[in-house]
Amino acid sequence: MKVHRYGERLDKCSKLMEEAELDALLLTKPANMFYLTGDGRLCAFSMITKDGKVALGVPKTDVEDVKQHAHFDQIAGFENEVGMIHSIAHYFEHFGIKKGAVGLEHTFLTRSMMDMLTHPHAKPEEVAIKDCTPVMSELRIIKDNEEIGYIRKAAKVSEEGMKAAVRAITPGITESQVAAEAEYAMRQAGAEEFWRSYVSSGERTNIAHGLPSHRKLKQGDLVMIDIHPVVNGYSADICRTVSVGKPTKEQQDAYDLYLKAQQSTIAKVKAGTGVGELEKVLHGVLEDAGHEEHIFGPPIHGVGIEFEEAPLPPGHAFFHGEKEPKPLGSNTVIAVGNCGLYTGNFGVRVEDTVVVTEKGHEVLTGYPRQLE
Amino acid sequence: MKVHRYGERLDKCSKLMEEAELDALLLTKPANMFYLTGDGRLCAFSMITKDGKVALGVPKTDVEDVKQHAHFDQIAGFENEVGMIHSIAHYFEHFGIKKGAVGLEHTFLTRSMMDMLTHPHAKPEEVAIKDCTPVMSELRIIKDNEEIGYIRKAAKVSEEGMKAAVRAITPGITESQVAAEAEYAMRQAGAEEFWRSYVSSGERTNIAHGLPSHRKLKQGDLVMIDIHPVVNGYSADICRTVSVGKPTKEQQDAYDLYLKAQQSTIAKVKAGTGVGELEKVLHGVLEDAGHEEHIFGPPIHGVGIEFEEAPLPPGHAFFHGEKEPKPLGSNTVIAVGNCGLYTGNFGVRVEDTVVVTEKGHEVLTGYPRQLE
Repeated sequence: MKVHRYGERLDKCSKLMEEAELDALLLTKPANMFYLTGDGRLCAFSMITKDGKVALGVPKTDVEDVKQHAHFDQIAGFENEVGMIHSIAHYFEHFGIKKGAVGLEHTFLTRSMMDMLTHPHAKPEEVAIKDCTPVMSELRIIKDNEEIGYIRKAAKVSEEGMKAAVRAITPGITESQVAAEAEYAMRQAGAEEFWRSYVSSGERTNIAHGLPSHRKLKQGDLVMIDIHPVVNGYSADICRTVSVGKPTKEQQDAYDLYLKAQQSTIAKVKAGTGVGELEKVLHGVLEDAGHEEHIFGPPIHGVGIEFEEAPLPPGHAFFHGEKEPKPLGSNTVIAVGNCGLYTGNFGVRVEDTVVVTEKGHEVLTGYPRQLE
Repeated sequence: MKVHRYGERLDKCSKLMEEAELDALLLTKPANMFYLTGDGRLCAFSMITKDGKVALGVPKTDVEDVKQHAHFDQIAGFENEVGMIHSIAHYFEHFGIKKGAVGLEHTFLTRSMMDMLTHPHAKPEEVAIKDCTPVMSELRIIKDNEEIGYIRKAAKVSEEGMKAAVRAITPGITESQVAAEAEYAMRQAGAEEFWRSYVSSGERTNIAHGLPSHRKLKQGDLVMIDIHPVVNGYSADICRTVSVGKPTKEQQDAYDLYLKAQQSTIAKVKAGTGVGELEKVLHGVLEDAGHEEHIFGPPIHGVGIEFEEAPLPPGHAFFHGEKEPKPLGSNTVIAVGNCGLYTGNFGVRVEDTVVVTEKGHEVLTGYPRQLE
């Protein structure tokens, strides 16, 4: 299948590979393969040469299916891991890559997988290894209009999920059952997939990653719901905090403060602004109100094929291998409100998916922001 | 919190660490931390010394929550990644570990995370790194009765999910909507989580990892449903293939053959049998019927905290860093039917979660095995 968009992306990729002194990319991360070839699946690889040639390796069962979706010059079906290694070796040979450097995804590959892909039976000894995360981030960070369209669709689906979750909130229901409502509604509304849902309640809203548990909602609890549907391969990210019954003054004050912090940050989003700058705005509002000790984690990240992708904030450097990102470009999509205000007894958080534009921004997730 | 089970597990861990010449484990994989400490969460670490001391590092927001669940001697809350690194360095110092070796999870850690955990500000230079995957696999492979009880519960929940999915099957519904029914039912039946669901239909049943898509079911399709709920931290694994309307003779014959292969394999499950042996039984039935070319992937793996864990079959060695597993011990739990018969036009597969016993086995997933 030949689609114009992949040609353009591969041209841009070639330029970035040239700058990074890479002779090939050996990708296994589905999101990266999907971006450059139109097909990203588990247990597969894409080799991309610096002149834009694409060679795929997939399970032998999947060859016909991939042919229907993917942009490629060559495709090989393998039987097992040994076959996968041999396909890689074959492509290195076919493209005449005997030295130079190959880019691998250091922020995705486990150590074991890396050992496999760089096994002497796969990679020529004199070909060096470099991390290609920065190349892939740079490629994917600015979305084209088709991509923005898909993220917009995902944002609409996320609103349907949030509506269903909030409607279900009542004392006695478990966090897992709240997640069930959101997920069911998102699939019905057109999501083919979703990233792991977060639903926490009561004192559990204070933890950093509130995955759903068997805890039953009680009158007076706050409930934090964070969901991320995938539509046509693209994600959205939304979080809302709501109360079970009437919130206390302490809960309402904390919520109002966080919402103010988040909304003032969104107000500053515009092409040319830095992620670090935005982070300072959000944290500044919380700090000015005496909550310096109640902040944890980076509040802003990119959204696209993945619900968390570049630009990733400074301070998240080790996990993601990212440098301090450049000022935001137009048509970058970000989530604002990734981390909350954690008072100790409870946490509050509101997160939205936002497109950066030349003149400012557009918020894609419009679901009402109200605690009660 | 002091619970007897963790003391026993840590004692066994100490012996294995001694044999593997490891002075400490530095774990970040939630499943491994959960097994040894009762708490496994994202963005956290556990350091385990060879005399069974447990030191935890968690986001500062999570300290109180972890204290309620975990077995530990020391706990530190960190602010960010730099704080995490410093906590690790502090624990190495505190335990007096200046040389020797620390075990890391090579089958879980990305290259970037590994760089972070072994950063000179985290790990003393003279402490070597080894892969502790074999230690953790050996520890977790034999389940105690409490664990079997949880897996049994998860198996019951998986049956509820399968029932809901199969009931929903009708022309016009999407694969994603079938997944929605299974997932919703599993959360209602008591799952706090589930691993990614696989639902594929029509020609898509032929692919190795059939994640749900927007494809609408049609009369005459086969539908493959593979689901994995988590209950109290433990998983089950079930797959069924069903037809939309009346199956063709070709579909029914392939299904009957695969079911025969799977059931003959289960019949051989008993303490002392090898995974390789079982794989041969399953593949043998398919090969004898002339389907040698229609086999892909390892048909058997372990089930426990993860829906895919040790024992992992030989041939999956690179991805998982596993050696050929020992003969199966009593109270190991396995899934039989992880990979199917892929005819080219369609695939068929039936998978069940099975406990290995001294005298034979017990099948935990009893949902009916019938195509129509």
